[in-house]
Amino acid sequence: MAIYKEKISVEESKTSKIEQVDFSKLDFGRVFTDHMFVCDYKSGKWQTPKITPYQAMTIEPSARVFHYGQAVFEGMKAYKTDEGRVFLFRPKQNFERINKSAERMAIPAFPENYFFEGLETLLNLDNDWIMPGIGNSLYIRPFVIATEPAISASPANTYRFMILCSPAQSYYNTPVRVLVAEQYSRSANGGVGAAKAAGNYAAQFYPTSLAQKEGFQQIIWTDADTHSFMEEAGTMNVFFRVNDTLLTAPVSDRILDGITRKSIIQLAEDLGITCEVRQVKVEEIKNAARDGSLKEIFGAGTAAVISEISAFQHKDELFEIADIDSDNSYAKLFKKTLMNIQYNISEDVHGWRYEVKPK
Amino acid sequence: MAIYKEKISVEESKTSKIEQVDFSKLDFGRVFTDHMFVCDYKSGKWQTPKITPYQAMTIEPSARVFHYGQAVFEGMKAYKTDEGRVFLFRPKQNFERINKSAERMAIPAFPENYFFEGLETLLNLDNDWIMPGIGNSLYIRPFVIATEPAISASPANTYRFMILCSPAQSYYNTPVRVLVAEQYSRSANGGVGAAKAAGNYAAQFYPTSLAQKEGFQQIIWTDADTHSFMEEAGTMNVFFRVNDTLLTAPVSDRILDGITRKSIIQLAEDLGITCEVRQVKVEEIKNAARDGSLKEIFGAGTAAVISEISAFQHKDELFEIADIDSDNSYAKLFKKTLMNIQYNISEDVHGWRYEVKPK
Repeated sequence: MAIYKEKISVEESKTSKIEQVDFSKLDFGRVFTDHMFVCDYKSGKWQTPKITPYQAMTIEPSARVFHYGQAVFEGMKAYKTDEGRVFLFRPKQNFERINKSAERMAIPAFPENYFFEGLETLLNLDNDWIMPGIGNSLYIRPFVIATEPAISASPANTYRFMILCSPAQSYYNTPVRVLVAEQYSRSANGGVGAAKAAGNYAAQFYPTSLAQKEGFQQIIWTDADTHSFMEEAGTMNVFFRVNDTLLTAPVSDRILDGITRKSIIQLAEDLGITCEVRQVKVEEIKNAARDGSLKEIFGAGTAAVISEISAFQHKDELFEIADIDSDNSYAKLFKKTLMNIQYNISEDVHGWRYEVKPK
Repeated sequence: MAIYKEKISVEESKTSKIEQVDFSKLDFGRVFTDHMFVCDYKSGKWQTPKITPYQAMTIEPSARVFHYGQAVFEGMKAYKTDEGRVFLFRPKQNFERINKSAERMAIPAFPENYFFEGLETLLNLDNDWIMPGIGNSLYIRPFVIATEPAISASPANTYRFMILCSPAQSYYNTPVRVLVAEQYSRSANGGVGAAKAAGNYAAQFYPTSLAQKEGFQQIIWTDADTHSFMEEAGTMNVFFRVNDTLLTAPVSDRILDGITRKSIIQLAEDLGITCEVRQVKVEEIKNAARDGSLKEIFGAGTAAVISEISAFQHKDELFEIADIDSDNSYAKLFKKTLMNIQYNISEDVHGWRYEVKPK
C-alpha cells in the first residue's frame, strides 16, 4: 500500500445546526452533524482527504454506484463519558472490515492513516454532537461509492470515501418479534453476504416488509440451500440461549463477521458462559422453545447493541419466549458489560476502547 | 395504480455535444446524449416528469442508494433504419421488468404512460444520436434510485427514475472465453438474482476480475448450492448447442428473464430448431465438448445481442470449441434474424418492433 502523507484539509462550517436538534427525540439516521469527511480516488490513488461542512454533493447520473451498486459501508459509534472523554469501540475492526468488503466488491483499499486521522479530526470538530449518557452515541457511517460516469458493467476507476455522523439514541427500544425465513434468502454460498455491501441491505427490504405486515419487525435469515439453519438477522447477528448455553452461527461467506458478535463471544468466555459457535438448526431452537429450554434470543450489532427478541415464527408456528428475570438475562448482562466498556465505566481488559483525544 | 395525466416538461439543451463524438470509436457507456429523463417520487406519488439537458445532479450523501443499494435498472436499444425510422425492440417487456425488479427491491412501480411518453420524447429530441447501420444503436438506460437522505436500513420514501441514452456499437466484437464458476456465486434461491438490481452486478466484479487474470472475459455462473448447473453469465443468458439442439436454463428467482433469451427461444421454434429449456449440467456440457457434440455456446443479452463463446474452463480443464462454418452457426443465424427484425429488414410476425414516430 502506498504511503499517504498529505495533511487533511479542513473547511469548518460557519454555523452549526445543533441548536435545531432535539436530542431526546432522535429518529435514527436522519440528522447529520455539521461536518463530513470526503476522499476521492482517481488516477490509481486516494487523493488528499478533506473535511467540509455536511452538504449535498454533485454526481453524474451515470456514476456506476447508481447502476451496479458498487458500494460498501461500515457502522461505528462514538461514546462520551460524563467527563467529556470520547471513545470508539474496536475501530480497527471496522477499518479492516471495510477494506475486506471493498476487496470483495472490487473497490481499492483505503489507507489506515487517512481513516483514523479523518475520523478523529471529524469527531473533534463535531464533538458537541456526541451526547454523554448511557445509550446516547454518535453513529458513524464510513462508506465508499463508485463515482465513475460510465455504465459498462465493470469496476469503476474513480471512487469516493466518505464519513457521515448522526447522533443516535438506542436503536430498538423494545423487544422485537422475528420471522424465520422459509422462502426468501439474504445471501448465497460464494456470494457477498459477508461483505457490508450496499445491495445486501436493499435485497432484504421486500421480504422484511412482508414480515412486518404479519407483525414481525425483523427476519432471521436461514441458509438459502435448505432454510434449516439459523444465520443472521440482516442488521444483527443472532444468539440463542438454550438453558445456560449460548449458540450462534459461525461466520462464513454468507454471514457478516460482526464486531459486537465477536465481542460477546469473548465476553461469554470472560464471564464463564459457554458459547457454542456452530450451525444452529431451526428445529433445534423450535424444540428448545417447546420444552422450555430456550431462555432467550437476542440480536447483536453496532446500531442495536443488543436487541432482545421476544417471539419468533417459523412455518406458521409462533413461539413466544417467556420473560426472563432481569438479573438472569444474558441479553441484559452482555448489553451492560459491553456498554460499561464502551462508556469507560469498567476496566478494558482486551484493549477495545480507543480514545479520541482533543487535538 | 393512479392515473398520471401531467404533461412532461421539456427543457431543451441550448447546444449539442454530438459534434465532439467519434461514432466509429465508441467506448460502451461513456458518452451520453444531450438530454435525460427525470421523474421524482415523493409524498407517495411520482411527480411530473421532466426532460432536461444531460447533467450532473445534486444528491445528499446520506441518500439510501449509496448505503443500501436500493436501485434497479433496465437496458434497451433504439435502432435506426437507413430511411431514418427509429424502432425499439419489445419495450413493454423492459417496462414490465423494471417494475418487477422494483417490487423485489421495495421500490414503487413506475407508471406506464410516463415511461413511454418520456422515452419517446427523449428519443425524438436526441434522434440525431441514433446512428443508422446494422450494429449501431442508441443504448437506453432507465434506472431508479432511492434518494431519501436517511441511513436507517429500510425502504426510502423518495426515489428518482431516470433515463440516460448512450450511443453504442456492438458490445463484444470477438468471441469470448469464459470460466465456469466453482466457488463464487451470483445469486441465492430466494434472493434477488432475477431482478436487475444494482448490487447483483458489483457482486460479480471481483470474481470476474480473477477470471480475467486467467484470460477469461466472463463467468458462467452455476447454482450456489452445488455449482453443477449452468445458469447465466451475469450480463447475458447462455445457450448451448449440442448437436442440433439448443439448451438453456429455465428462469428462476436466481436467473434473469432475459428479453433476448425469450426472443431466441421463440425464433428457434419459428426456425424449427429444438430448444430445450431445462437445467443444464456442467458435466453434460463437458462431456459434449469431449465427444465433439458441443457445437456452440453463446450469450444473449441486449447489450451484447449474441456473444459467441469460443472456450470455457471448469476445474482447470479447458475446452476449446471448434470454429463452426458461418452458414451453420446458430449464433450467427439468431443474431442475423434478431437484427433483421430490430432494423426493420424482415417481417415482424410477433409484433416485437415498436416504432418511435416523430411528434
